[in-house]
Amino acid sequence: MAVKIGLVGTGTVGGGCIDIIKTHAADFKRHYGIDIELVAVSSLNPEQAAAHGVSKLFTPDFMNIINNPEIDIVIELIGGTTVAHTVVTEALKAGKHVVTANKALMATYGVEITELAREQHKELAFEASVGGGIPIIDPLKHSLIANKITQVMGIVNGTTNYMLTRMDEAGLSYDEALKEAQANGFAEADPTADVDGFDAAAKISILASIAFNTNITMSQVYTEGIRDLSAIDMATAKELGYALKLLAIANLTDEGVDVRVHPTMLPIDHQMAKVNGVFNAIWCVGDFVGETMFFGEGAGAGAAASAVMGDVLEVARHVQQGILPISGNTTKDELAIIPMDELSTKYYLHLVVHDQAGVLAKSATIFAKHGVSISSMMQKGKQKGGAVDLVYITHHASEKSIRAAVKDLVEAEGILANDTKPVVIRVQE
Amino acid sequence: MAVKIGLVGTGTVGGGCIDIIKTHAADFKRHYGIDIELVAVSSLNPEQAAAHGVSKLFTPDFMNIINNPEIDIVIELIGGTTVAHTVVTEALKAGKHVVTANKALMATYGVEITELAREQHKELAFEASVGGGIPIIDPLKHSLIANKITQVMGIVNGTTNYMLTRMDEAGLSYDEALKEAQANGFAEADPTADVDGFDAAAKISILASIAFNTNITMSQVYTEGIRDLSAIDMATAKELGYALKLLAIANLTDEGVDVRVHPTMLPIDHQMAKVNGVFNAIWCVGDFVGETMFFGEGAGAGAAASAVMGDVLEVARHVQQGILPISGNTTKDELAIIPMDELSTKYYLHLVVHDQAGVLAKSATIFAKHGVSISSMMQKGKQKGGAVDLVYITHHASEKSIRAAVKDLVEAEGILANDTKPVVIRVQE
Repeated sequence: MAVKIGLVGTGTVGGGCIDIIKTHAADFKRHYGIDIELVAVSSLNPEQAAAHGVSKLFTPDFMNIINNPEIDIVIELIGGTTVAHTVVTEALKAGKHVVTANKALMATYGVEITELAREQHKELAFEASVGGGIPIIDPLKHSLIANKITQVMGIVNGTTNYMLTRMDEAGLSYDEALKEAQANGFAEADPTADVDGFDAAAKISILASIAFNTNITMSQVYTEGIRDLSAIDMATAKELGYALKLLAIANLTDEGVDVRVHPTMLPIDHQMAKVNGVFNAIWCVGDFVGETMFFGEGAGAGAAASAVMGDVLEVARHVQQGILPISGNTTKDELAIIPMDELSTKYYLHLVVHDQAGVLAKSATIFAKHGVSISSMMQKGKQKGGAVDLVYITHHASEKSIRAAVKDLVEAEGILANDTKPVVIRVQE
Repeated sequence: MAVKIGLVGTGTVGGGCIDIIKTHAADFKRHYGIDIELVAVSSLNPEQAAAHGVSKLFTPDFMNIINNPEIDIVIELIGGTTVAHTVVTEALKAGKHVVTANKALMATYGVEITELAREQHKELAFEASVGGGIPIIDPLKHSLIANKITQVMGIVNGTTNYMLTRMDEAGLSYDEALKEAQANGFAEADPTADVDGFDAAAKISILASIAFNTNITMSQVYTEGIRDLSAIDMATAKELGYALKLLAIANLTDEGVDVRVHPTMLPIDHQMAKVNGVFNAIWCVGDFVGETMFFGEGAGAGAAASAVMGDVLEVARHVQQGILPISGNTTKDELAIIPMDELSTKYYLHLVVHDQAGVLAKSATIFAKHGVSISSMMQKGKQKGGAVDLVYITHHASEKSIRAAVKDLVEAEGILANDTKPVVIRVQE
C-alpha cells in the first residue's frame, strides 16, 4: 500500500515536488520499492494546484490534511514562522512525519520542533532548508559522523552570490546588481532577508547545530550583509588575490562556537572562491575526513524539490519497513557562542578620506592607539570633491580593536570625507 | 550492549579506522547513542596492529573473525579481488554485516556480493570505495534518488590528478611527475593501476551502476591512462582555455550508458577544472537537482577511514535498532553499454611531423577522407631532428572516424616523424 503524502504550499518548490511525483513515482516503485502517492494539496492559491494538474487533490484548509488519518507524511512548504509553525507542530501532534524546507522555522524553533518529533516518534526532515538541492544535512547526520567537525563554511545565499558575481565580473554597483537580480527573478522586491544576511544566518545556524552537535538559533549569529560593498572593494579584493563573498562561517574552538555571516575576502585559489552566480557551496572540515565541499544549485524549483522529495522518499522507505526515526541525537552539547568582539583575523578597511596632508598621519595614530598593525595601504583613486579612496590591510587584529579604531576614525576631525563610513571586510586565510 | 566490530586489514586505512574508534567511540555513544567496540583485528602484519595499540585484539587468521559469533560487522580493508572476495563472502555467509573500501572487488563482483548480502539480509556498505572521504555513494542512494541522474563524472584518482597538476603548474614531464609522486608517497612503485586508468575505471563503474540503476563492471569501461601526455599538451590545453584532467565519465542516454576513463580537456571555468593535487571530486547531474559536485580528499588514512567508519556507524545504528537493510534496489535495469566507436565529441590531436612541405596537405587529405572537420591548427615548436609539433582541434567527430584517420596518419609515408604516435585527447564541452 502506498505511503500517502499531503502537501501544504504550492509555490515554486511545492510545484517542483508535484512535478517530481508525476514524473518519477513509477521509477521510485520499480527501482527502490518505494510506493508514494500524493493524496492532498493545500495552499492559499488554488490556481497553483490547478497549474500543476492536481486540482482534484486541493483543499483550502491545511487542517484537512493534518486531520486526514490516511496521510503518513506532511510536506510543509509555505515558509515563515507563523502558519508554518502551526502546520508542522499540528502535523507532528497528529502523528504525521514532517518534511520541510523552512530554514527560518528550523533556525528559530528547531529545538522545540525536534523535541516534539522525538516525543511523537515521528521523523522531521529538512534537507532543503540549506543549500537548495545540495545534500549537506544528510551527510552531516550520516556519512561524516565519524569525525569531529571543526568548521562549516558556506556560500548559502544565491541572491547575494549572484549580485557579488555580477559586481565582480561586470563592475556593477550594488544598486545595479540588485536591480539585475530582481529583473532576473533572483531577488525579491524586498531583498532584506538576502542582502542583509538573515537568510544565510538561518542556514549557518542549522548547519552548525548539526555539525557541532549543539543548539544555535539564528538570533545568535552575528550578521552583516552586503549593502556597503562597492565595485572598488570587488576590484581591490581581486587585485590582492582574494574573492569577495558573503560567507556564513562556523568554527568549533575550545572556547565554544564562533558563528557569523559577513562579506569575506577568500583567497582566490580556494575552491569556494570559484563558486559563482546563484550556485551554493558548503565547506566542511573534519578531523579525519579533512576538507570537503558540497556544491550545487542553491535555489530554484527543481533543486529544492529534489531535496524535499529525497527526504520524503527516505521517510517513506522507513514507513514501509516499519522503522522508527533513525538519526536522533541522544545528547546535544550546549556550547557557548563566542562573542564577536573576541574574533581575531585580518581586516580590509576602505576609507574615503579628504585628500590633504596629515590624513595618513592622523589615521596611523588612531590605528597605533588601538594596537592595529597595518600590513599594507593603497590609494585607489579619487572621488568627486577631492576625496580619495584609501584601502588598508591589517595584520591579525581583534574585532574589538578594529571597532574602536573605526569609531575613532569616524569621530576624528578631517579624516573621513563626505560623511562616508568605513567599509570593514574580514579576510579569511 | 555494544555492536561488535572485526577488522581485516591493518594498513593505512585500517590504521585510520582504529584511530577513529580510539579517538571518538565515547562521542559516538554520547552524541548518537551508537555504541561500538572493536573486538578483533587481523592482517598479515601484526606489527601494524601493535603500532596502533591493538595487539591484544590481533589474530593472524581472519577466519577467527568470521567465525566469532559475537561480531556483528566485519570491515574488509585488505584490497584486491582474491582473499578479499573470500573475506567478504564468508563474512556475509556467517551472518555478518560487511563494510569495505574495496573498489576492485565491488567493480568486479558487485552483483554477486550485493545479491549474497540481500539473500543473507545483511548490509554491504562501500562508501570508501570511491572518492576517499567524500560522501558520494550515500547521497546517490539516498538524498538524490528523487532524480533521474543523467551524468556522473569524476576526478577520482588522486595519483594522476597530482601528476597532471604538477605537469601543469611546474611544467614537469610525465616521468618527472611520476617520480615526484612516488617520492611523496602519492604513487606506488608499480603505478599501473593509477596511471593507466584502471583505478578510475573501477570507481566510475561503481558510481554509474548506482546512479543509473544498472550493473556495470570495470571491464566494460573504456579506459585510457595518462602515459602519453606531455608538457606540450598541458600547455596547449591551458592556452586553449582548457584544463587537462583524467576524467571518469558516465552518461545516461536513450541508447544506453556511455562510460569511459580518459584524459579530457575540460573548460577552465568548469568547477571540476579547479580540482587540483590529490583532491577528488564527483560531478553529478540530475533532472531536478541540476548540477552538483562533491569535493574532498581522495586518499590518505584519515579520509578513507572517515568513510569506512561512517558506514560502520550507520550499520551499527541499524543493528542497535533491529532494522533490516534499507536501501536495496528492487529492480536493476540492465542497460546497454554504448560502444566507444559511437562516441561523438571534439578532439585534440597532437602530431609530431616532419618539418617539410606537403605534410599539412597530406594530413588534410586524410582528415577529409574520414569526414573529420578541423576547427583550428597550431604549430607548437620544433623538436630535435627538424620535426615539429602540430596540434589540431576538430569539430564534432565520431570516435570511429578519428581512429580511422589516426590509423591512416600513422601508416602514411612522410607525415609522422621519429616513429611517434599521435596523441588523441577528447574535449568535453
